[in-house]
Amino acid sequence: MELLKNAILERGYVVGGDILKVDSFLNHQLDIELLNEIGKEFSKKFEGESITKILTAEVSGIAIASIAAQYFKVPVVFAKKSDSKNIDAETFDSQVYSYTKGRYYTMKVSRKYLDREDKILIIDDFMANGKAASGLLEIIEKSGAKLVGIGVVIEKGFQTGGDEIRSQGIRVESLAVIDSMGLEGVTFRE
Amino acid sequence: MELLKNAILERGYVVGGDILKVDSFLNHQLDIELLNEIGKEFSKKFEGESITKILTAEVSGIAIASIAAQYFKVPVVFAKKSDSKNIDAETFDSQVYSYTKGRYYTMKVSRKYLDREDKILIIDDFMANGKAASGLLEIIEKSGAKLVGIGVVIEKGFQTGGDEIRSQGIRVESLAVIDSMGLEGVTFRE
Repeated sequence: MELLKNAILERGYVVGGDILKVDSFLNHQLDIELLNEIGKEFSKKFEGESITKILTAEVSGIAIASIAAQYFKVPVVFAKKSDSKNIDAETFDSQVYSYTKGRYYTMKVSRKYLDREDKILIIDDFMANGKAASGLLEIIEKSGAKLVGIGVVIEKGFQTGGDEIRSQGIRVESLAVIDSMGLEGVTFRE
Repeated sequence: MELLKNAILERGYVVGGDILKVDSFLNHQLDIELLNEIGKEFSKKFEGESITKILTAEVSGIAIASIAAQYFKVPVVFAKKSDSKNIDAETFDSQVYSYTKGRYYTMKVSRKYLDREDKILIIDDFMANGKAASGLLEIIEKSGAKLVGIGVVIEKGFQTGGDEIRSQGIRVESLAVIDSMGLEGVTFRE
């Protein structure tokens, strides 16, 4: 998606060689017009899939999923994160390791909002090592819902998460895949 | 806003006498169609105000602010919350007391995304004791931006936050004001 790649090149920047900061349009300030184009692009990619719900994770997936959901005409459910390891009988939980924080956290979705009739599209801002996506996959599996696929705004193609998940036969659609990045800039996969 | 009041009556419920759970449409599962109507309603209330940016706070303000921002054609900035008390030179900060959590947390907005040219509309899901809104007001004041007003989805009118903020001459528009609630149900202000 050219508009997104241009935003990354012009308004993103790389910190310390491996962190891409997109705070100016995706993660802190939100460029709602760009998010609309991203939403439209996801709806084209997953057209005809009769999706019933979009699942994402707090915090940074929420705006993207909400704007995209308008094109699918479905509700959004966002997984809540907590440091607590209590397994709540009323939630589907997954333990997820965060490399950024250096610890596990629990992702939770209330059992009320996912069931075996649902066809779920996961939407998230980043895919890197795939830990967060795997947490959402585990929650969907526990709920008995059907997974349609995963829509990712920015995939770090030089990390293994996306390809590991694809190798399980899961459809992953990333709107921009970064092959390499560093102080010299960002290179996208063609 | 009748549609919202009906959603609260039909799909919300009161826990322990003073907590209104709206997880089924506003806080965990998101009814995007209703959020669109909420966004339109805010845009009517603040029409002609030449707003340049919408400010909200993570987590539960993000979806509402993002959907509403489409009608204002402006970006959203959401304040990040952290337990850290480090004052970052590159952010506008506010210490906010959370009654729910029983402790202070820090709300932060990068200095890059607010400036004295901005005319800000605050949008949030709830107004109760007004602590979160006051934190956002402090951040706006530090940035030198102009405040246009505050749009609230649900105001707990039996708590003092809304009226305290109005008494400072600040415009607060709440789409549903709850006068009382308990096990017998919810009563709205006319």
